Amino acid sequence: MTDTILSSATREVVIGFDRPFVMIGERINPTGRKLLAAEMRNGDFSRVVADALAQVAAGAHMLDVNAGIPLADEPALLTKAVEIVQSVTDAPLSIDSSIIEALESAIAVYQGKPLINSVTGEEAVLERVLPFVARYGAAVVAVSNDDTGISEDPDVRFEVARRIVNRAADHGIPAADVVVDPLVMPIGAMATAGRQVFRLVHRLQTELKVNTTCGASNVSFGLPNRHVVTGSFLSMAIAHGMTSAIMNPLHDEARAAVLAADVLMGHDENCAGWIARHREPVDGASPAATTGRRRGGRRARLGADGGPASAADA
Amino acid sequence: MTDTILSSATREVVIGFDRPFVMIGERINPTGRKLLAAEMRNGDFSRVVADALAQVAAGAHMLDVNAGIPLADEPALLTKAVEIVQSVTDAPLSIDSSIIEALESAIAVYQGKPLINSVTGEEAVLERVLPFVARYGAAVVAVSNDDTGISEDPDVRFEVARRIVNRAADHGIPAADVVVDPLVMPIGAMATAGRQVFRLVHRLQTELKVNTTCGASNVSFGLPNRHVVTGSFLSMAIAHGMTSAIMNPLHDEARAAVLAADVLMGHDENCAGWIARHREPVDGASPAATTGRRRGGRRARLGADGGPASAADA
Repeated sequence: MTDTILSSATREVVIGFDRPFVMIGERINPTGRKLLAAEMRNGDFSRVVADALAQVAAGAHMLDVNAGIPLADEPALLTKAVEIVQSVTDAPLSIDSSIIEALESAIAVYQGKPLINSVTGEEAVLERVLPFVARYGAAVVAVSNDDTGISEDPDVRFEVARRIVNRAADHGIPAADVVVDPLVMPIGAMATAGRQVFRLVHRLQTELKVNTTCGASNVSFGLPNRHVVTGSFLSMAIAHGMTSAIMNPLHDEARAAVLAADVLMGHDENCAGWIARHREPVDGASPAATTGRRRGGRRARLGADGGPASAADA
Repeated sequence: MTDTILSSATREVVIGFDRPFVMIGERINPTGRKLLAAEMRNGDFSRVVADALAQVAAGAHMLDVNAGIPLADEPALLTKAVEIVQSVTDAPLSIDSSIIEALESAIAVYQGKPLINSVTGEEAVLERVLPFVARYGAAVVAVSNDDTGISEDPDVRFEVARRIVNRAADHGIPAADVVVDPLVMPIGAMATAGRQVFRLVHRLQTELKVNTTCGASNVSFGLPNRHVVTGSFLSMAIAHGMTSAIMNPLHDEARAAVLAADVLMGHDENCAGWIARHREPVDGASPAATTGRRRGGRRARLGADGGPASAADA
């Protein structure tokens, strides 16, 4: 029973073993988004605001904010992005950068308790990131690679995670405030990528007793119909104990797979969340608010008979 | 490493731990299908033939055949259905009845090695079913309930399964020819139904070393958008080691969840099966042959860029 509590100025979100899965919206990230990168560089954060609102409307519990634009002043951009996103939504944030100065600058303006994304097992990174995570009372994503790189052996990655958790404790950061990212590789490049993560997540929950997260979309990189693969991956990872992911809640398949997995893990009491989301939209309601977006009506009706799968037809 | 080999006169299908999941089409079943029941009773098997062909076209590896019509001559109907289905497809069959005489009559005409669905742990059933399963060299579905009913405790269900496997061995039926059904309850009625099955499937694979199957659709009974829940359940059960299911391959969500789970378990070499199914349909090809039926084109294009999820747009 490990609860990682994150907050904005006015709202708390808890990542935990026996709770609904926490979806952290991945969209506010200029990597591979040329237009967004150009706008942010020019001080135009309108798309950042739109992405924040759309993801929260789609069901994101938290938002990842990344301002990784080559040659830009990333500490200034990330700090500005965090301030702007916090001004339009009360979702707690994951402050995401590989530039330590950017993390340190953004955490200083953050209202509440953020998730700092990330610290690795690399000595130089640990020694710089953990002190300010401790000072601000934040939580941190621990990525299970170290100075030797990313091991293909999940048991080696487990040991890296264990070392980060221990080092965090040395700085006064409790294990509940370390969310481990087991590192998700593209399944198209490495056939064992899925099973590695499932095994690692199970060990992280049962042995290290920490919460977990990952960049879920990476698993389907390069595959056709990839969002279905990402969705199945999320359901399978949740079945093994994963408790949060940085993902795109605007993709129906991924979001629905998470909510269905919550139901199947017994984390959606009386299936109330699922039923509320899939009720036939009343007129005027946005169809995007249902999981069956673009086809919610037909599906909802098919389901509404309440009979077995074969009962609706001849 | 347990392989359950089923066959028709000309084709073999293997259920096994390190193999693609075996989809057993559930459609040929008059339960809740009044029109089909009326037709079968009148000797009209045209819909049975159509259901057989459609399910095989959708990717079913095997077909379940059930003729459970109240007050009908079920042994005669089931036998006739098995003969007719075997005359139009080479998919091995699961011969499904709660009437032992019907199983015994149908197995006598079956060409190949069928799956007999099912035997329970009830003494009277074991003593009547196992002898003819052994005599015909068939495989059998073992349902984990006994004379005391269905236990809510998955460990009790495990012991029932163990007892059936032992009794089968007494009759000369190897464990590889016993496919255990852990019994899937509706998650809407029992919040622990999913976790029970995941735990049980894991124990059945690692301790009893048997293959598993289930009636997958049952899990989503009564819920809206139920096929998404069934799909997530299948992905999650596969992640815990389930190796086959009686399911509806005509439902995109369920079928795609199985095929994606095969990819993520490393059971679809080089993702070749997934990629072949989700290639942009060439003109003239039936869109129903792709997993993204009705929307395969747009999805296939979205995936075809090969970039990360966020790369395709601004």
